Amino acid sequence: MDPIESTSNPRVKTWKKLHSRKGREKTGLFLVEGVHLIEEALKAFIHMKELVIDVDKEIPVEWKVSNVPQVFVTNKVMKEICETETPQGFVAICELPDNKNVPLERGKFLFLDGLQDPGNVGAIIRTADAAGINGVVLGEGTVDPFNGKVIRATQGSIFHLPVQRMDLKEAVQICKEKNIPVFGTSLQGSTYNAIQPQDNFALIVGNEGSGVEDTLLEMTDQNLYIPIHGKAESLNVSIATGILLYHLRG
Amino acid sequence: MDPIESTSNPRVKTWKKLHSRKGREKTGLFLVEGVHLIEEALKAFIHMKELVIDVDKEIPVEWKVSNVPQVFVTNKVMKEICETETPQGFVAICELPDNKNVPLERGKFLFLDGLQDPGNVGAIIRTADAAGINGVVLGEGTVDPFNGKVIRATQGSIFHLPVQRMDLKEAVQICKEKNIPVFGTSLQGSTYNAIQPQDNFALIVGNEGSGVEDTLLEMTDQNLYIPIHGKAESLNVSIATGILLYHLRG
Repeated sequence: MDPIESTSNPRVKTWKKLHSRKGREKTGLFLVEGVHLIEEALKAFIHMKELVIDVDKEIPVEWKVSNVPQVFVTNKVMKEICETETPQGFVAICELPDNKNVPLERGKFLFLDGLQDPGNVGAIIRTADAAGINGVVLGEGTVDPFNGKVIRATQGSIFHLPVQRMDLKEAVQICKEKNIPVFGTSLQGSTYNAIQPQDNFALIVGNEGSGVEDTLLEMTDQNLYIPIHGKAESLNVSIATGILLYHLRG
Repeated sequence: MDPIESTSNPRVKTWKKLHSRKGREKTGLFLVEGVHLIEEALKAFIHMKELVIDVDKEIPVEWKVSNVPQVFVTNKVMKEICETETPQGFVAICELPDNKNVPLERGKFLFLDGLQDPGNVGAIIRTADAAGINGVVLGEGTVDPFNGKVIRATQGSIFHLPVQRMDLKEAVQICKEKNIPVFGTSLQGSTYNAIQPQDNFALIVGNEGSGVEDTLLEMTDQNLYIPIHGKAESLNVSIATGILLYHLRG
């Protein structure tokens, strides 16, 4: 079959709509760009509806995609669909996973309150995966985890970890009922390393500028902060989250 | 005086050359973009040769820059000089600080071996500042810290901390002579949290893909690694550095 050559082809237009959250939610689909991330999605049994391939590239032989319809496009069209500057030539059109519930029974959890930078949220999901966290709850105002930049920054961890949207007050309430200690982050809190590692916990980190909402901070068991020893005004939120998660899990 | 309107004005061309390391090294100058970073540079007594101002903006009254020559430019010229997408309208042309020696006598130090991503290096310098580290040594292959992206990611910490280029083998050798324990990072190392916090140490972190060079790892007192508990393949190097620095300083 001839490759799609026109950027105004209706299928190309449909794929491009998946760059926005609205487009993803309307269709239940999202885009996965590049060799490594497509491999991670395949390993995690993410359902692929179509594989869009630059006509000048060859599919890696080890990809088990014989039952996934393949669509060939020119390099110009590929650039139009991709959000990265130098596309690798492969884009999978995938179904959004069913809302995987974060198992707030026992375990280690991370709650994100209004985090807006896709690079931060992606790096945080990757770090939570590395730290063996059991699930990430996204409160209101937190960027969509199926945003292309978030997916790339997770380096595939978005496919491994349960990630769920939920009202954070409700999530904290569930933790209280299940006796899971909840730690907020606040400059008015205690020094984080006064706390011993915990088998079960939920850690809340907040917006890049304004931090965790006061109403949430009032509901926690304890609020923590990382001391600043030098002249920096603050830590980047993804680095702060890494320090806290690795300390709390021990 | 009329603002500079042409992007081919020779002064504009000279300023643009400061986007490259070659241009900075040849002239001994670098650019500082934006209100917050210029304030940090002023506080740190960085010498400003000129302040370039968008003709439609007003200098914040609290800036003590009465003795700094001011040059007005149009918005179009400002966009040409700036590396950020939405310039704030202020760029300072600054003199590169004299090579501030990192005081490898006693204290806490961070050595960067071949780190190439400006965002990572900037975030790492900011984190080292927050952790109260006494200086950062940049080995061969590490990106220039006066690169605009690095400066922005440091959020001003580049002006607070001694940052010096040096052969890392030489730096490790000095630490040995001064009895400063040196820790490398390697997957073949010991779990980092088996190590107690230290008053004096040097930590070496390495290139995003290949890590710390083997010849350096052989010279250290001990090599450390951060365990991966989940399915992520690795941690981002700036997050790993944050976890290690805060653990080692205690």
